[in-house]
Amino acid sequence: MDFKDLAALYKTELLDNVIPFWLQNSIDKECGGFFTCLERDGKVFDTDKFIWLQARQVWMFASLYNNVEKRKEWLDCAINGAEYLKKYGHDGSYNWYFSLTREGKPLIEPYNIFSYTFATIAFGQLSKATNSKMYADIALATFEIILSKVENPKGRWNKAYLGTCNLKNFALPMILCNLAQEIEHLLDPKILNELMENCIHTVMEEFCRPELGGIIVENITVSNELSDTFDGRLVNPGHAIESMWFIMDLAVRLNRPELIQKAVKITITMIEYGWDKEHGGIYYFMDRLNKPMQQLEWDQKLWWVHVETLIALLKGYNLTGSKECLEWYKKIHDYSWKHFKDEKYAEWYGYLNRQGVPLLSLKGGKWKGCFHIPRAMYQCWKTAEEIANKEI
Amino acid sequence: MDFKDLAALYKTELLDNVIPFWLQNSIDKECGGFFTCLERDGKVFDTDKFIWLQARQVWMFASLYNNVEKRKEWLDCAINGAEYLKKYGHDGSYNWYFSLTREGKPLIEPYNIFSYTFATIAFGQLSKATNSKMYADIALATFEIILSKVENPKGRWNKAYLGTCNLKNFALPMILCNLAQEIEHLLDPKILNELMENCIHTVMEEFCRPELGGIIVENITVSNELSDTFDGRLVNPGHAIESMWFIMDLAVRLNRPELIQKAVKITITMIEYGWDKEHGGIYYFMDRLNKPMQQLEWDQKLWWVHVETLIALLKGYNLTGSKECLEWYKKIHDYSWKHFKDEKYAEWYGYLNRQGVPLLSLKGGKWKGCFHIPRAMYQCWKTAEEIANKEI
Repeated sequence: MDFKDLAALYKTELLDNVIPFWLQNSIDKECGGFFTCLERDGKVFDTDKFIWLQARQVWMFASLYNNVEKRKEWLDCAINGAEYLKKYGHDGSYNWYFSLTREGKPLIEPYNIFSYTFATIAFGQLSKATNSKMYADIALATFEIILSKVENPKGRWNKAYLGTCNLKNFALPMILCNLAQEIEHLLDPKILNELMENCIHTVMEEFCRPELGGIIVENITVSNELSDTFDGRLVNPGHAIESMWFIMDLAVRLNRPELIQKAVKITITMIEYGWDKEHGGIYYFMDRLNKPMQQLEWDQKLWWVHVETLIALLKGYNLTGSKECLEWYKKIHDYSWKHFKDEKYAEWYGYLNRQGVPLLSLKGGKWKGCFHIPRAMYQCWKTAEEIANKEI
Repeated sequence: MDFKDLAALYKTELLDNVIPFWLQNSIDKECGGFFTCLERDGKVFDTDKFIWLQARQVWMFASLYNNVEKRKEWLDCAINGAEYLKKYGHDGSYNWYFSLTREGKPLIEPYNIFSYTFATIAFGQLSKATNSKMYADIALATFEIILSKVENPKGRWNKAYLGTCNLKNFALPMILCNLAQEIEHLLDPKILNELMENCIHTVMEEFCRPELGGIIVENITVSNELSDTFDGRLVNPGHAIESMWFIMDLAVRLNRPELIQKAVKITITMIEYGWDKEHGGIYYFMDRLNKPMQQLEWDQKLWWVHVETLIALLKGYNLTGSKECLEWYKKIHDYSWKHFKDEKYAEWYGYLNRQGVPLLSLKGGKWKGCFHIPRAMYQCWKTAEEIANKEI
């Protein structure tokens, strides 16, 4: 594998294909913010605005501006989204709605904690790009609210009857692993440290289960036990793998080689667990006891699962030289580029059926925006570059 | 087509295959109520109890007892479920939870209006079978609560921001069409009449859209207009077709031949609209503007969609002699018996992929219980019998 070529491939795909797609098609010049419901060719097919995706696109462009090049159009794009979010995205007290009309009227109430986490990383990155105290304050105020909601993230919209069988979910601690690093320039070092240690502990010692061969489960009881219920049996390989590169980044930052080794091992375990031996690709959902699932989409192949896996494997290889990482990387790379990349139009497909055929033609929708694909292109580009530089 | 044979086929499938499956596998003799999460061979794979399915099974067995034969084991089965529901299913004021643990502790709060509607028809049918005033009172008290919730069925769990773009959904008026007839023995004739007229009007004049060629959409604005949003574009052919046999039943009861003709026409329109010309079967979800959908399961083939279609077509043929009904009936009959019936074990599969291959092995789960399959067997048996008797 020529890592110089690989770096160039990802750089080109990012800068000449994916980012231009979003710059050309997603900016709402009239009302502010972004259209994210984009057809295969980039045409807007719905104008609802989802806070997850508004914030993630702000983050993406601010991050490109901070880490790749000081291009004005990238900063302008990020600010366009941030101003829209600042004005319409919350209830006045940084309780972030889930979605808005094109004009910014609230559609869905602030029930979803990830609207808050993505707002935090968006304003966090943008505060770095602009040196704006206002943006930093929004990030910090939102972060405070997240911390206050950790115990019951859905608040009054929580349908679980409190006290019977309350499970805790993997998604929030996993996202906090990433969020901690995103806003470290805004945090008191003591709080940052505590947050990082907590996240690492929760992910590696609570949700990762040695008694199940080291896989990560999506839900455990509040006393950290496995639960033989639909939610307690659920495994989401993509989630687990994505969290492992967050952990690798944390481990590098904290200089903990043994944590890197552990994260690489879990990555491989999860890919072997989640790989569809019949049709290729990684399943969306699995049941750890092989029981029938509630998720009808369990056998589908999703864009984010595969590109997050590319990041984790390439980082794993870069950090440890693991042959398993490299072999799996080649396999997932081939699968992803063959099935998700659209050869006719820009950007990548999001949803394939089990056989690897696109199930929806969209390039962006309610959940797919300007985030996983470009972030993965960036991460793979930079990681491949590091590997190439070491080889010289 | 020999309708005497057809009647016998459905009768045998109901009484010798489907009903024994539930009697043998689903009754929880220890804690009361029913297990509904049953593997292909009937083995219990999860013990959570969902109020929809508890109530629907009570209804099914009470209905068999009332309409087929006074078998004690059927009545006992219905009472087993009803007593469990009475004791654990609600908060003390007939606010019906969504799900319970095996022992009856609440798991999911009473956010779902259909827990209430199915409780109503369960206790309504059982009050007929037992002449019990207590069961009748539960049905009526629950019915009162439903009426009070029509405007905002999800109450405090409603995530839609009130006032921006509120849509009304087809499911509740559709279910009320059926519910009205189920509890007519308990209702004041004036209230019953109003309810029936309202339902017919809402279904036929509001959700059925002549400007779209007479299809039924799942959501319209509160001022009865189409909405070009994800929910406003949604079409659920199975829902629409199921409602048409409720309307046919109402039309027979009210002696309105023109309403029968209209319902038959919509049935055919919806089947032609929803039929998968490539792989056969009826799609689960569609977008009326052919835009990408949020529902990742849109192309799957579900048991209830197909067996509800069998009922609507057979009733339509019985009531009007429509050749189109008969031709489509044959096609859907062949598809359903070929793909959903399990040749090795009792009961039918619930979830097929687009190609018609089972996606989940379960016979019962969170949504599939002792309801659509046996109800359809019963309805097809009785309707085929009527047709056969006319032919003599």
